Amino acid sequence: MDTALAVHIGEDELPFVDIGDGSQLKVLQVKHGEGIWVIENIFQAGYEVETHRHTGPVYGFTTSGAWKYKEYDYINRAGSFLYEPAGSVHTLQCIEDNTRVWFHMTGSNINLDAQGNMTSVVDGTLTLEYYYAVCEKLGLPRPSVLVS
Amino acid sequence: MDTALAVHIGEDELPFVDIGDGSQLKVLQVKHGEGIWVIENIFQAGYEVETHRHTGPVYGFTTSGAWKYKEYDYINRAGSFLYEPAGSVHTLQCIEDNTRVWFHMTGSNINLDAQGNMTSVVDGTLTLEYYYAVCEKLGLPRPSVLVS
Amino acid sequence: MDTALAVHIGEDELPFVDIGDGSQLKVLQVKHGEGIWVIENIFQAGYEVETHRHTGPVYGFTTSGAWKYKEYDYINRAGSFLYEPAGSVHTLQCIEDNTRVWFHMTGSNINLDAQGNMTSVVDGTLTLEYYYAVCEKLGLPRPSVLVS
Amino acid sequence: MDTALAVHIGEDELPFVDIGDGSQLKVLQVKHGEGIWVIENIFQAGYEVETHRHTGPVYGFTTSGAWKYKEYDYINRAGSFLYEPAGSVHTLQCIEDNTRVWFHMTGSNINLDAQGNMTSVVDGTLTLEYYYAVCEKLGLPRPSVLVS
Repeated sequence: MDTALAVHIGEDELPFVDIGDGSQLKVLQVKHGEGIWVIENIFQAGYEVETHRHTGPVYGFTTSGAWKYKEYDYINRAGSFLYEPAGSVHTLQCIEDNTRVWFHMTGSNINLDAQGNMTSVVDGTLTLEYYYAVCEKLGLPRPSVLVS
Repeated sequence: MDTALAVHIGEDELPFVDIGDGSQLKVLQVKHGEGIWVIENIFQAGYEVETHRHTGPVYGFTTSGAWKYKEYDYINRAGSFLYEPAGSVHTLQCIEDNTRVWFHMTGSNINLDAQGNMTSVVDGTLTLEYYYAVCEKLGLPRPSVLVS
Repeated sequence: MDTALAVHIGEDELPFVDIGDGSQLKVLQVKHGEGIWVIENIFQAGYEVETHRHTGPVYGFTTSGAWKYKEYDYINRAGSFLYEPAGSVHTLQCIEDNTRVWFHMTGSNINLDAQGNMTSVVDGTLTLEYYYAVCEKLGLPRPSVLVS
Repeated sequence: MDTALAVHIGEDELPFVDIGDGSQLKVLQVKHGEGIWVIENIFQAGYEVETHRHTGPVYGFTTSGAWKYKEYDYINRAGSFLYEPAGSVHTLQCIEDNTRVWFHMTGSNINLDAQGNMTSVVDGTLTLEYYYAVCEKLGLPRPSVLVS
C-alpha cells in the first residue's frame, strides 16, 4: 500500500529559501490535518524569531553553529537536542553564522508581543504557502515537499 | 509501571460546571505538554461557541440532542462521529436542549472575529484552569482530572 | 482547502458488522500512516477481547451497558471515560448486553498469551480490511470510512 | 508551569552505549504513555537492524555517513530526511562507518522473520531499560534521559 512507503528526501532535493538577512528555510514535510510540519533552518548570527508560544510539542536537532532562547541560558550547538512542550514560550536568537537546525513541529506558533498579546500565528500550512511562493518567485519548480 | 495503568473516570466522578445559559463543561483529561485535552459538554438549545480554527485534529462523539456547525448542513445527533482536522474553521450552534458531546482535542482553538482576525485562544491548560476555578468557587473539592 | 473540512458520519451511515456472538464493530476512521483508528463497538454479555498491550494511547467512551478489564475492578458504564496509555495491558470482558463503546486508538494491539508471549497484532489497517471484507460478503456497498 | 519548559540536552550530556560491533545508541527522550521516543545512533559499516514494521510514524535525520533500507534504492547521507509512516516495513543496513542518525519514533518496532512472522517487539520503554542497564554495567551514573 502506498501509504506504507518510507520516503527519503536527500539534502539537495529541496532548496533553501531566504527568510531574511541570509537566514534560510527548507520545508520537508507538512501534514495539514495533523498540524505536523518538519523544516530545516540555516540561521545567521543575529537572526531572531519573535517570541511565540507553541500549541503542540516541538523537537529540535541542531547540526552546526550556535543558537539559544533568550529565556534560557543553555546554548544549542551541533549535537544538541531540544524538547519544547506545548505551552512553552520563547524567543529564538542565533549566535553563530550557518547554524543549522531541524525542527519537528506539532501545532502552531502563536506570536506574542512584549505584553504577551497575540500578534499573529504561524503554522505548517502557512509556512508551506510561503515556501511555495518564494520558490515560484525565484523561478524554481514547485518543490516536492512531502504533503498530506 | 504506573505510566502503564489504564485509568477510568466514571460518569459521576467529575462535576459538570456552567459555561453560560445552562450549558456545561466537564474536563476529563489534559496532557499539557502534548496539547491534548478531553472534555464532555452538555449544551442547551441556542448555545454558541464562537468561530474558531483548530491547530490540531479534533474528534467529536455525540450522545444526545442535536448541534451543528453554521458552516455545514449536517447535524450531529446521538451516534454521530465528527472529525475536525487541523486548520478547520467553524462556529458551533446547539439546536436541542441537553445535547451531549465528547471532544478529544489536540492543540488550541484560535477564536476569530467576523473578519477572520484572531481574538483569543483557548486550549487545554486554560480550560483546566477555568474548570478548577469554577469548582473552587462552588465549594467543590478539586476535581480529579487526569493531568500530565 | 479540502484537508481543512470537518467531516460528519451520522449514526446510520456506516453499518455495524458481526465480530462473533452478536457483538459488533463499526470502523469510523483510519489514518494508516499515523496508526490512528476510531471505531465503535456493540458488545454482548460474555464477549471477550484477548489480552493485549497497546503501542500507543487509547481513549474509550462508553455510552451504554457495562464492561470491564479483568485486570481492574472498575466497570465502564454509560458516561465512563477510559484512558489507556501506551504500554498498558488488559483483557476486555463485556458484562451486559448492548454495551456500546467508542475507541480512539493510536498504534497496534499486540495480543498476548497467558505467558505474555505475542500471538498476533491488530491495527487500524487490518481492522479496516476486515470491515471491508465482511461488508462485501454481506453484499453491502463499500462503507465510506474516513480513510487517509 | 514546569510542564511548559523547553529542555535542552547538549551533545555530551548523555553517553552513547554499544549496541554491537561498535555501533552505538543514545536515548534522548521517552514518553512512555504516548509511545514516543527520540534516539540518536552511530552505526558502523555492515551494521544491520532486523526487518521490522512500525506501529506509528518515524522521522529520521541523518547527520553523517551513509545507510539505507534494503527494500529501497535511496541512500541516507548527511542532510537526508526520512519519513516512515505507520505500517512501513524495512531492514536497516549501514554502509559507512560513523553514520549518525536521529530518530523521532512513535509506537513500536515489530520485528519480523523472513516469512513475515513477528519475532519480537522493541519500543521506547524497552530501549530505555536497555540504555539504563548498560550505563549501570559500565559504572556510569543513570543518564538524565527526558522521561515522562
